[in-house]
Amino acid sequence: MQSYQEMTKEELCKEKESLEAAYKEWQKRGLSLNMARGKPSEEQLDLTMPMMDVLNSSADLHSEDGTDCRNYGGMDGIPEAKRFMAGMMGVNPENVLVYGNASLNIMYDTVSRSMTHGVMGSTPWCKLDKVKFLCPVPGYDRHFKVTEFFGIEMINIPMTAEGPDMDLVEQYVSEDAAVKGIWCVPKYSNPQGISYSDEVVKRFAALKPAAEDFRIFWDNAYVVHHLYEDDQDEILDILSECEKAGNPDMVYEFCSTSKISFAGGGVAALAASKANLEFIKKQFTVQTIGYDKVNQLRHVRYFKDMDGVKKQMMKQAAIMRPKFEMVEKVLSEELGGLEIGSWINPKGGYFICFESLEGCAKSIVAKAKEAGVTLTGAGAPFPYGKDPKDSVIRIAPSFPTMEDLKMAAEIFVVCVKLASVEKLLETK
Amino acid sequence: MQSYQEMTKEELCKEKESLEAAYKEWQKRGLSLNMARGKPSEEQLDLTMPMMDVLNSSADLHSEDGTDCRNYGGMDGIPEAKRFMAGMMGVNPENVLVYGNASLNIMYDTVSRSMTHGVMGSTPWCKLDKVKFLCPVPGYDRHFKVTEFFGIEMINIPMTAEGPDMDLVEQYVSEDAAVKGIWCVPKYSNPQGISYSDEVVKRFAALKPAAEDFRIFWDNAYVVHHLYEDDQDEILDILSECEKAGNPDMVYEFCSTSKISFAGGGVAALAASKANLEFIKKQFTVQTIGYDKVNQLRHVRYFKDMDGVKKQMMKQAAIMRPKFEMVEKVLSEELGGLEIGSWINPKGGYFICFESLEGCAKSIVAKAKEAGVTLTGAGAPFPYGKDPKDSVIRIAPSFPTMEDLKMAAEIFVVCVKLASVEKLLETK
Repeated sequence: MQSYQEMTKEELCKEKESLEAAYKEWQKRGLSLNMARGKPSEEQLDLTMPMMDVLNSSADLHSEDGTDCRNYGGMDGIPEAKRFMAGMMGVNPENVLVYGNASLNIMYDTVSRSMTHGVMGSTPWCKLDKVKFLCPVPGYDRHFKVTEFFGIEMINIPMTAEGPDMDLVEQYVSEDAAVKGIWCVPKYSNPQGISYSDEVVKRFAALKPAAEDFRIFWDNAYVVHHLYEDDQDEILDILSECEKAGNPDMVYEFCSTSKISFAGGGVAALAASKANLEFIKKQFTVQTIGYDKVNQLRHVRYFKDMDGVKKQMMKQAAIMRPKFEMVEKVLSEELGGLEIGSWINPKGGYFICFESLEGCAKSIVAKAKEAGVTLTGAGAPFPYGKDPKDSVIRIAPSFPTMEDLKMAAEIFVVCVKLASVEKLLETK
Repeated sequence: MQSYQEMTKEELCKEKESLEAAYKEWQKRGLSLNMARGKPSEEQLDLTMPMMDVLNSSADLHSEDGTDCRNYGGMDGIPEAKRFMAGMMGVNPENVLVYGNASLNIMYDTVSRSMTHGVMGSTPWCKLDKVKFLCPVPGYDRHFKVTEFFGIEMINIPMTAEGPDMDLVEQYVSEDAAVKGIWCVPKYSNPQGISYSDEVVKRFAALKPAAEDFRIFWDNAYVVHHLYEDDQDEILDILSECEKAGNPDMVYEFCSTSKISFAGGGVAALAASKANLEFIKKQFTVQTIGYDKVNQLRHVRYFKDMDGVKKQMMKQAAIMRPKFEMVEKVLSEELGGLEIGSWINPKGGYFICFESLEGCAKSIVAKAKEAGVTLTGAGAPFPYGKDPKDSVIRIAPSFPTMEDLKMAAEIFVVCVKLASVEKLLETK
């Protein structure tokens, strides 16, 4: 196909006309489609239904150390759940605390406690004039919402194909004591699907922070969320890398079963050094009477171990993969060679990240909306919802059916083309 | 029995000798008993085992409004769970948010958010020089731990047979703008088992706080936890009383199913005015991706409604009541007339509160420990763990078997007598 960049004004005008016609055809159909939500489909959730049978009324609800999961006690998780979640993250069970549903809640708590109580003896962040977080962009909007909620200043760090721009990270972290944290999704990142290279992980572990209470917030949300059986990303274990580099306390790692079992009824965990955990447990005993141990037991009895998880994730992949590949096919067939956008075909995670011409993302999302396709808001993957180039759009292929997704993708590419033509015409 | 108060020095010495002999006999048996833990017994937990069958692999896990409980979404609880928890508290479902396991976690969050974000627009408490909470005593140690954790100054308010000393509460609340809250367990209070009279509730609702961000923390932990079918305490609904008094936003009410279903896998809820909820929901969407909706659904499908809960609580009472009555019998038979202590026979809740002679509680708890009976630490029911009179001991009869409990109670009364005799001899 001819690149839009090389078209004359006349050619662009002609293209615009035909695109407008196509767009109107879609509008006429009055569709209501959604590629905004990074949530599992019903079919994926059905995979976990057998879990509902493992703890019935005749089951023994004691954990392996004799704890009655139905009663109070065992604040940091039952032993088998700690081992299970540790296996997922590739760390030692003694470095793990198991929580309730939702790892976001652990991240929120961790930031909230740092605000009110500091980090392992440091000044509470709420007593400081300025607290800053580094935010690799594009990133996960809910991370940014947490830091925004607490009035923490967020600094954009560009992503590269190997992870965040580490030169910039090293500079900020070593020079500015107000920089207290960085949000990372190190594997199959949200939204780009990028996995951090070994060098990036090692450079993270070797950071020399100006602030003693600087922490890496390592959200390993997609740790086992591969799309392919034979082509999987693996990243280095940040906890042991930090320990090797003499920075054992510098990282909090988070993960959950939200997109493994049920997003609405899973188990989440935190991994960190023993010194960090000791400090956190002081809050733990004040904060709650204990998380849901019955659900922890249910998960372990069902999945048993990492083999069980891997089998489950390959079933999930079998449902997810065709959706990703279909969207990628439409993008490639319809936009390939036009030079109006780029995207990465990820090997895991939940998203495809589309980068349009500068200044087109909002327009594309608005056009899609008017043709019946809801996309994640333009700007959402950036702190304060502000995409400096107005070019990043997060596509979530998981939830719609294949039929709906195909239509949504086809509408999307029409919108991309139309917005791009309009943009290019502005300067002709 | 002859009152210890009327005994001569010689009589007391003789009594001491015989008590020491009895105490040594108990010590020889090398028992290990526990009356410290306010947790349900295994037999009580077994009552809820049929709940494990209601959501099996062929169940429909959609809520009545079509929400797939397995997936993300529905931040404030599924409609039937809101209605269910509202029924428990006697409020409207629209005034309810449903959380995960543990109401203590909601209380912690509520205080924590007030510290960092204030209350409905007020200055964040962490920015103030001084924040104070009123603490009716004796009270629940974990409430006091929350406020202590945040450096909030706690002020003791004596309990009366009808609830907290309201003259004192009114004075503090109306005169001191640093007083931002009060911890209440209004029904079958922890540890005394006192239920607030209608007049007390109405005086609470009619408070005229100096601080606009003053809130009553109304922990209705034992709302349906009666010991008797035909002799039950009921208290007025604080939400509607506050509304009637023109103070609709002045109260947060908390409750949970911890001691109805499973303490280690229940559902908790918050009730408050719509204005409060609107403010809280802003945090909600930042704080979590959602609480466990599957467990919410499991609870409602099992209990169905308040009739289901009431039936369950009468089964719980049938297990609890003989334990309470047995302890009360031992206390009355062994201590009646001695004038060395008093206690209330509660009609619900989880505790019997024993009040010894001044300066004896620590000694009694220590003696019991050495004879193999663990009691809640003396001082625990007071802010900072400091009982000004050193006289209050919380007895938790629920967890031990009847046999163990009988021995524990018998050892306890020997320890009370012995500590009292020693005390009385000091001044002879």
